[in-house]
Amino acid sequence: MARWQPGTSGRLQAAALELFASRGYEQTTAAEIAQAVGLTERTFFRHFSDKREVLFRGQEQLTDAFLRGITAAPDDAAPMDVVAAGLDSGTAIFPDERRPHSRLRQSVIEQNPALQERERHKMSHLAATIGDALRARGVGEPAATLAAESASTVFGIAFIQWIREGEDRSLTEISRTVLSELRGLAGGNPARHPAQQPA
Amino acid sequence: MARWQPGTSGRLQAAALELFASRGYEQTTAAEIAQAVGLTERTFFRHFSDKREVLFRGQEQLTDAFLRGITAAPDDAAPMDVVAAGLDSGTAIFPDERRPHSRLRQSVIEQNPALQERERHKMSHLAATIGDALRARGVGEPAATLAAESASTVFGIAFIQWIREGEDRSLTEISRTVLSELRGLAGGNPARHPAQQPA
Repeated sequence: MARWQPGTSGRLQAAALELFASRGYEQTTAAEIAQAVGLTERTFFRHFSDKREVLFRGQEQLTDAFLRGITAAPDDAAPMDVVAAGLDSGTAIFPDERRPHSRLRQSVIEQNPALQERERHKMSHLAATIGDALRARGVGEPAATLAAESASTVFGIAFIQWIREGEDRSLTEISRTVLSELRGLAGGNPARHPAQQPA
Repeated sequence: MARWQPGTSGRLQAAALELFASRGYEQTTAAEIAQAVGLTERTFFRHFSDKREVLFRGQEQLTDAFLRGITAAPDDAAPMDVVAAGLDSGTAIFPDERRPHSRLRQSVIEQNPALQERERHKMSHLAATIGDALRARGVGEPAATLAAESASTVFGIAFIQWIREGEDRSLTEISRTVLSELRGLAGGNPARHPAQQPA
């Protein structure tokens, strides 16, 4: 049900998620995860360095997907168009059949402050990597950091929407809608500085 | 030198920052901080719950300042104008004489991953609180979350610029420049979806 990757890693991952969700992350041991799919703890540790890695293994894959989109964008693309290309590429690695897996993973993370922090760290690392890629393309500051943080924000908002019950649009489609909302929000009004708060 | 708040708390805070910066955060005890200003450990704990609080006490004050600006913005202000009002108000609590203090604090945080995480948590909490305030004003989703995350991003970028050696603009002035850069970036180009990354 929450299965996504085929093979032993995928079976261990699916079993781990089910156990984390039903018993709690802290209460589940690597041995129990292995046992649930008829394997030994030793086999578990051949596939994952620890049980937390079951939840965060996809991080590099996500960063790489963003970077592929950014690299492939035309040289003269504006920073937010480069971000759009990165988002299209980053979101494309989440096919709809992965939605139940992602939903279960999210519910586990929301129950555990240390995992939430790990997730924040992951998103902050993603933004930093995108910022580096934009600077390497010649985007200056603060544009590179602003665009990179916006990419990470849009991804995060789109992702939470994607795993909502009843949502059936693809992650890429949602992400495009959120990005275009950001563009409308930020660009739609001239920069005004309300008089009631002088510097 | 790094003194900002007057009184015993301020003296303890200044001494703590100097010790954290010179000896390292982990290596400094509450007793040593107290001793540096001729006080006892017990006095330290009457002012701070632990040594980490010396670095993070200002969090509520910052959130409240943002909220004051948001609340004072006209009812019909567009979300990003409300954010501009929040930023003006939030940045106004950092007078220029606080710059050396903030610079020293930042150098301590950058040397310690657990403090960096605490800082990320603080910024993420700030964004969540601003998002709540925008929703309470009737701003829908994803606009409220996007605007709130943008506020936190702009503040973070402006802050790092403000404490840079040689920078002499006020935090409010820098924050206005960064926000206007975000508006230009996001709004300056029509939303295009590069063809090389279809969903």
